Amino acid sequence: MSINSFGRILRYTSWGESHGSAIGAVVDGCPPALRLSEEDIQPWLDRRRPGTSRYSSQRREPDRVRILSGLWEGRTTGAPISLMIDNVDARPKDYSDIAPAYRPGHADFTYDAKYGIREPRGGGRASARETAMRVAAGAIARLIIPQVHVRAYLVELGGDGIDRKRFDIEAIDANPLFCPEPEAASRWAALLDQARKAGTSLGAIAECVATGVPAGWGAPLYAKLDADLAGAMMSINAVKGVEVGDGFASARLKGDENAD
Amino acid sequence: MSINSFGRILRYTSWGESHGSAIGAVVDGCPPALRLSEEDIQPWLDRRRPGTSRYSSQRREPDRVRILSGLWEGRTTGAPISLMIDNVDARPKDYSDIAPAYRPGHADFTYDAKYGIREPRGGGRASARETAMRVAAGAIARLIIPQVHVRAYLVELGGDGIDRKRFDIEAIDANPLFCPEPEAASRWAALLDQARKAGTSLGAIAECVATGVPAGWGAPLYAKLDADLAGAMMSINAVKGVEVGDGFASARLKGDENAD
Amino acid sequence: MSINSFGRILRYTSWGESHGSAIGAVVDGCPPALRLSEEDIQPWLDRRRPGTSRYSSQRREPDRVRILSGLWEGRTTGAPISLMIDNVDARPKDYSDIAPAYRPGHADFTYDAKYGIREPRGGGRASARETAMRVAAGAIARLIIPQVHVRAYLVELGGDGIDRKRFDIEAIDANPLFCPEPEAASRWAALLDQARKAGTSLGAIAECVATGVPAGWGAPLYAKLDADLAGAMMSINAVKGVEVGDGFASARLKGDENAD
Amino acid sequence: MSINSFGRILRYTSWGESHGSAIGAVVDGCPPALRLSEEDIQPWLDRRRPGTSRYSSQRREPDRVRILSGLWEGRTTGAPISLMIDNVDARPKDYSDIAPAYRPGHADFTYDAKYGIREPRGGGRASARETAMRVAAGAIARLIIPQVHVRAYLVELGGDGIDRKRFDIEAIDANPLFCPEPEAASRWAALLDQARKAGTSLGAIAECVATGVPAGWGAPLYAKLDADLAGAMMSINAVKGVEVGDGFASARLKGDENAD
Repeated sequence: MSINSFGRILRYTSWGESHGSAIGAVVDGCPPALRLSEEDIQPWLDRRRPGTSRYSSQRREPDRVRILSGLWEGRTTGAPISLMIDNVDARPKDYSDIAPAYRPGHADFTYDAKYGIREPRGGGRASARETAMRVAAGAIARLIIPQVHVRAYLVELGGDGIDRKRFDIEAIDANPLFCPEPEAASRWAALLDQARKAGTSLGAIAECVATGVPAGWGAPLYAKLDADLAGAMMSINAVKGVEVGDGFASARLKGDENAD
Repeated sequence: MSINSFGRILRYTSWGESHGSAIGAVVDGCPPALRLSEEDIQPWLDRRRPGTSRYSSQRREPDRVRILSGLWEGRTTGAPISLMIDNVDARPKDYSDIAPAYRPGHADFTYDAKYGIREPRGGGRASARETAMRVAAGAIARLIIPQVHVRAYLVELGGDGIDRKRFDIEAIDANPLFCPEPEAASRWAALLDQARKAGTSLGAIAECVATGVPAGWGAPLYAKLDADLAGAMMSINAVKGVEVGDGFASARLKGDENAD
Repeated sequence: MSINSFGRILRYTSWGESHGSAIGAVVDGCPPALRLSEEDIQPWLDRRRPGTSRYSSQRREPDRVRILSGLWEGRTTGAPISLMIDNVDARPKDYSDIAPAYRPGHADFTYDAKYGIREPRGGGRASARETAMRVAAGAIARLIIPQVHVRAYLVELGGDGIDRKRFDIEAIDANPLFCPEPEAASRWAALLDQARKAGTSLGAIAECVATGVPAGWGAPLYAKLDADLAGAMMSINAVKGVEVGDGFASARLKGDENAD
Repeated sequence: MSINSFGRILRYTSWGESHGSAIGAVVDGCPPALRLSEEDIQPWLDRRRPGTSRYSSQRREPDRVRILSGLWEGRTTGAPISLMIDNVDARPKDYSDIAPAYRPGHADFTYDAKYGIREPRGGGRASARETAMRVAAGAIARLIIPQVHVRAYLVELGGDGIDRKRFDIEAIDANPLFCPEPEAASRWAALLDQARKAGTSLGAIAECVATGVPAGWGAPLYAKLDADLAGAMMSINAVKGVEVGDGFASARLKGDENAD
């Protein structure tokens, strides 16, 4: 079974380990005649790139994406699009001391239980590095449905939430924590410094808003948009909860308050 | 595409409208030689059955399941198992007055936007009645993995949560609201009576605990157990949020507190 | 895995054994607003029906199809369409003497090897009766693509081929062997009588012509129309070979003769 | 939809054009702990490699396969295996004169009808070069089921068949046409030289024998081994017919002669 694939109409398959030679993805089902180049994908990878602030992984990766197939004269042909990023800063030695031990929350134990073998360098396949290919494939998806605008940001970090009355969409890209409220961004930076000094880390809640989605997308029941989104979100490392719309808050609303 | 199917190794396809002649499902991939009869499925449908208390839908349905294929002398053969429940209390007339109007939160508008046509009786395909087939198929799944024990109950209704210190597993089936705390059950009954008098309804939070699940089930990333469960839960009508483990609470924990 | 399903955009799942209570199929992905009734499907089942001539199975089945879901006021809604045919002439006793023995060419041995259990009545799931649901689902597919006209007939029986110069499309439905050449039809009837007296059976070659198929249907390579058709044909009991276009004859052509 | 994928339990997705920068495949579902290196795959690619005799494509490709993911210390980990072959002899200029014209039998017209755009160099995605990835993925499949031995050879070329009484398994690899009969190999070489001088090409029939396949592999009906094999074969460029077992010859046998 294709356990490394996601999507119905547009379907992608990701491959690669954190410290292998490269990571990549094959995007299948992309409509033809779409203008596409590496420049459409790279800015999104740059935003995601580790090593750009002291708050993220210190790995230094240029994360240059290459498109290896599916294009002719700058346009998609309907053929599968192969994306690849060489792992430049793969440093197997750095992890040599942790290889024998199971790290908490890193799927080490689970992989061993399932497969009896695992690639120990940097979490191997379970590394958050895999999300780079989701970002790359997502950049193509954005071009396919330009009428939809998707934006994500953090609304809470270490239990400290933003003040929604001071929500400033411009602030999101102006701080390394993608926080839409400048003051919260400063507080969070301090919280993170503190946590790092204490040798621990902090949880966070991200919010994602898509505008321009027409009524009727997705399919009823099992292929419902909400269902596919929830599954996709929960497949990202460390995600433990997903809400749509009012989410859990709607459980505290009366039916007439909650009605659309 | 099979948009009415769910599952990877064991896969089922559901069909039927709330007020059509019947609802059903085909369960494919069931291992052979498993003892199975309608009696294994019926008790779960009886627990789900509407019309058993004044807190649920007033529809009166015996919900008798029939197994139409896949069995030989009381055991599964590996062939697809066809399940069917006749709709006995389908009353098209009861809904005749609401057919022209879009009811809030009932997917009426979405169906029209997508298909340009919809079966208006009782929500048609979007009716919560469809979940009866999930219950029926789930009863078969339970037999396939008897080492796993799954139990669900309500932990909050109308914003009123249970007191976990008074959690009593025996209480769950002793009240019509599947509440594991007897006092909360009484309060909830009052809350619901009040809401019904006011012509509204209340939200709730259900908790589901599975024990006996071995490490290594599911697959990494896109076919992760968490991801498939989240997608499945979110595909149920009215579900707006899903948490796994500590869920959103873990976003307020420090890394060392959260570690497994 | 859905091993009893077929199709990509329109997908159907079949269920039921030859001598169980019923056989059926769920057709998923049918476009909405298509006029559909049992009368659109029944004539195709009538043509297929056993017991109408002495050359086919002597089983007497009215094979009345019922549509159990997916329709509203005579039109499809986009919801899954459930089809069912009750098995009227299921006679378990008739097969009681052959149950213990493996019949050649009937998949008995294979089922036992795979599942360790099998429904012995009339071949169970492996019975040619399963093709009734292909016919029923195909009748819906025909309505979805009315521009395509599909016609099938026999061109050879017991090694005796038709004279293509005498091909008469009107003859096909005028004889019980679907032979497009009246004289061959008579010879074949004699051959079959002879074979039956000798306690054996004869092989045949069917030809299927689809007209009105636009260029570009199907997908390149693995989802190629030829590939899906070949797989579908070969999944029918007793089919041992499939040719497309000139088929094996093209292996004897030179490249310039074979070019389109 | 994943239209560039094939397989159920072991599933692979191929990508790449004949004259793009590379071709590749992702093999998903490979069991863990299998010893695998590029040396297991390369010999099969070498046998397939063009430019090794004057009877095949004159393209000169070393076709060196690289494994980019899915291995740890020489063994598979259960993670997706990414295979890549750089296109070394991609010569876009060589095809510049044929780009505007539709070549017969090369899918040029079909691609334009379907997509309105196509990569014209060397057939792009429709090039037989894509089969290199089938060979590479097949080499991995062989390691997974070592009990099965698969061997293929030509039995007819240009209408000239081998003499089965002189079948010599050792001869297959001793001539560039994979002919199991030395004399036929010589005749075929002459036929091909003749055809090339005349500016045409010849058709052929290949036979493939798998031994060691246990009873019960595959699934009944739609996922039948015969059906999947027929679909796979027919998805290869230029294949127009597939037979299993006695194939079309069995249509000329009586039931008792044909019985297993």
